[in-house]
Amino acid sequence: MNIIEIIEKKKNNKKLTKEEINYAVNAYTIGVVSDAQMAALLMAICINEMDEEETFYLTKAMIESGRMIDLSSIPGIKVDKHSTGGVGDKTTLIVAPIVSACGVPVAKLSGRGLGHTGGTIDKLESINGFDSDLTTEEFVKQVKEVGMADVEQTEEIVPADKKLYALRDVTGTTESISLIASSIMSKKIAAGADKILLDVKTGSGALITNFEDSVKLAKMMVEVGKRYGKKTVAFITDMNEPLGMTIGNGLEVKEAIKTLEGNGDERLTELCLSLAAKMISMGKEESLEKARKEAEDALKSKRALEKFKEFVKAQKGDINNIKVSKNTFNVYATREGYVYDIDEVTLALECLNMGSGRKHKDDKLKLGVGILKHKSIGDYIKVGDLLATVYYEDVKANAKKIESAFMVGSKKQEHFPLIYGVIE
Amino acid sequence: MNIIEIIEKKKNNKKLTKEEINYAVNAYTIGVVSDAQMAALLMAICINEMDEEETFYLTKAMIESGRMIDLSSIPGIKVDKHSTGGVGDKTTLIVAPIVSACGVPVAKLSGRGLGHTGGTIDKLESINGFDSDLTTEEFVKQVKEVGMADVEQTEEIVPADKKLYALRDVTGTTESISLIASSIMSKKIAAGADKILLDVKTGSGALITNFEDSVKLAKMMVEVGKRYGKKTVAFITDMNEPLGMTIGNGLEVKEAIKTLEGNGDERLTELCLSLAAKMISMGKEESLEKARKEAEDALKSKRALEKFKEFVKAQKGDINNIKVSKNTFNVYATREGYVYDIDEVTLALECLNMGSGRKHKDDKLKLGVGILKHKSIGDYIKVGDLLATVYYEDVKANAKKIESAFMVGSKKQEHFPLIYGVIE
Repeated sequence: MNIIEIIEKKKNNKKLTKEEINYAVNAYTIGVVSDAQMAALLMAICINEMDEEETFYLTKAMIESGRMIDLSSIPGIKVDKHSTGGVGDKTTLIVAPIVSACGVPVAKLSGRGLGHTGGTIDKLESINGFDSDLTTEEFVKQVKEVGMADVEQTEEIVPADKKLYALRDVTGTTESISLIASSIMSKKIAAGADKILLDVKTGSGALITNFEDSVKLAKMMVEVGKRYGKKTVAFITDMNEPLGMTIGNGLEVKEAIKTLEGNGDERLTELCLSLAAKMISMGKEESLEKARKEAEDALKSKRALEKFKEFVKAQKGDINNIKVSKNTFNVYATREGYVYDIDEVTLALECLNMGSGRKHKDDKLKLGVGILKHKSIGDYIKVGDLLATVYYEDVKANAKKIESAFMVGSKKQEHFPLIYGVIE
Repeated sequence: MNIIEIIEKKKNNKKLTKEEINYAVNAYTIGVVSDAQMAALLMAICINEMDEEETFYLTKAMIESGRMIDLSSIPGIKVDKHSTGGVGDKTTLIVAPIVSACGVPVAKLSGRGLGHTGGTIDKLESINGFDSDLTTEEFVKQVKEVGMADVEQTEEIVPADKKLYALRDVTGTTESISLIASSIMSKKIAAGADKILLDVKTGSGALITNFEDSVKLAKMMVEVGKRYGKKTVAFITDMNEPLGMTIGNGLEVKEAIKTLEGNGDERLTELCLSLAAKMISMGKEESLEKARKEAEDALKSKRALEKFKEFVKAQKGDINNIKVSKNTFNVYATREGYVYDIDEVTLALECLNMGSGRKHKDDKLKLGVGILKHKSIGDYIKVGDLLATVYYEDVKANAKKIESAFMVGSKKQEHFPLIYGVIE
């Protein structure tokens, strides 16, 4: 095998074979293929794309670069859940305990945030003492005993992805259906679940903003999962406005708890119930209607809330001690009218500037900072109305920018659709 | 300036600005942009291409990465000549002394060979004692006194090209009209000539095999030269069969001398006279017809031969001591019929295997090895006829492969056309 020939083949828009893809991934992982060579190949893949078969072989080669987690000792069908990332997306914190409370084990590996979207592990670490670093044995044991665990993906899982992702990040090769699909699916498959539920975000605040490309990504991942023998379902959901009322790690955990207490934002609650119902129906192999009722019941009865508390305690977190910054200031409306859109990217970037997220991989987070918004799309606002409360540490967010993120018009507007479709 | 944004712009097939191109080249040359980032950008350029304006700015940025040679103290219009590289292409060794003998100064920087095509400096170094490493002062002085000098391009000239070329070589990004054009033109312009004559080879043994792409490359280089204020003319000439009778450094110098003596291969002689006539007409600003007569006269009168000898002597070469290997074997025909094609790539690769060229940049050459062919397209051959003589050192060429390179049919065939067109 010759890496230059492989690169030139993809450059000339030809289909790569299983062997060529294997060679490229393996040789890169062990350092025989250089960063420069892989960057050239990645760019050729970004522009000329890969088909489903190539993407499957890429995913497979990446999985085989590391070890797979064996969840077979846990009884029942294990269903994993993954979101492609959005602003204020704390659904995992709500969905996982609902699903677990309904008897479907949740063995979840999560990531950290990069750029304007957050990561579940960062959010969980805003709970004082929370340990996201269990051994596989501890992890499996906790899922068996508590029904739920969430730990950080370790270096042993898909090391090729770690190396490739770092390279893609600095070489302008992040946006590619095949590369995103293989990165996500390799980690999900290696994590050992039997079935996978994907929440593909679409809209201005999503990794993929374009609707058609979001559908393409969803289809590609469902196909890769299927070829691997793992039932995979993808929801395509909205990311044109912030999800729920908060952005920022500690604030989002608090909002998740409030939602589990039954007092959550309506739209957020509905999305969580929809996702949970699908996971339960996949895990129990029962109808979606039955699963939906179980999910609603787990929420209403507070069994999901109790499951969340039990899970946090098992991972040494103190649920009464969640990081939220003491310093706050309010942002007030300077205009009157109906809120017709809220620019979630502006809000997310203001949070990022305050330290809620990472601009660079090694940035240290300020887990208590963030924005709590008081108005949503459809609300009527007057000059002087409270729009948002900003939680900050040393760096303050820009109040003007936050105010401008609330777009005001003369007609009452509905929210964006919540779920655009389900691909399976 | 952000290199990732620049990479993504070209990835998305957008036109880069002068400032973006400058930044990318400069930041890469000083090491702020990594090999991986530049490889990604190069691949995006390979696939999405650059237009004439972008290619001009790329060429300009590359020139400005180093120093330009000042030939202004040499009287007259200096015309440089460059071939994109072919099998058995020793035209510079013949054209330059003809042109110089006609009073047009030739101040030439040449390169070394890589892969199956040779380089003029390697060929000249098969002349015992030949010094291709003059200072700029010595170089200019020799052009003034002798009318001709040929030295190796130094590190000071277009250092960005050196670094970029090495990267392109290992990342599958060599084939690109814009990248090839900017690489060639940056070196030609930095070398200080007033006008440039390009010999763009097309056909199976050329850098660019496809005719349409050869024309595109020629047009791009002519346009870049024009935008830089340097009159540039491109010949598009054939590389579907070996040029002349020899392949290999010392053998080619001997053939060049034979041609200057008036006993050269007809096709090679004609190409050299055509190129020389054009250079003379450009240098003297006179009609092509007049220039052609002068070129023919310089050849016939042996003034060009004397000029070549004078030039070799000035650069300390001993023309009576040219490296040609002592060990030889003959290859005979095993079939009967008319030679309708000679596979120049097979012959070149056999020479490469014997050590006439570089597989890797740092390979040491065996300057005496090569192939002398005795038959050309159109010749009738019988079983047992002498096809070629192989000159070798430790590694022998494969006789069967050489024999098979002479393709035989039942009808007499003409040579390929010699000159397909002239672009100016």
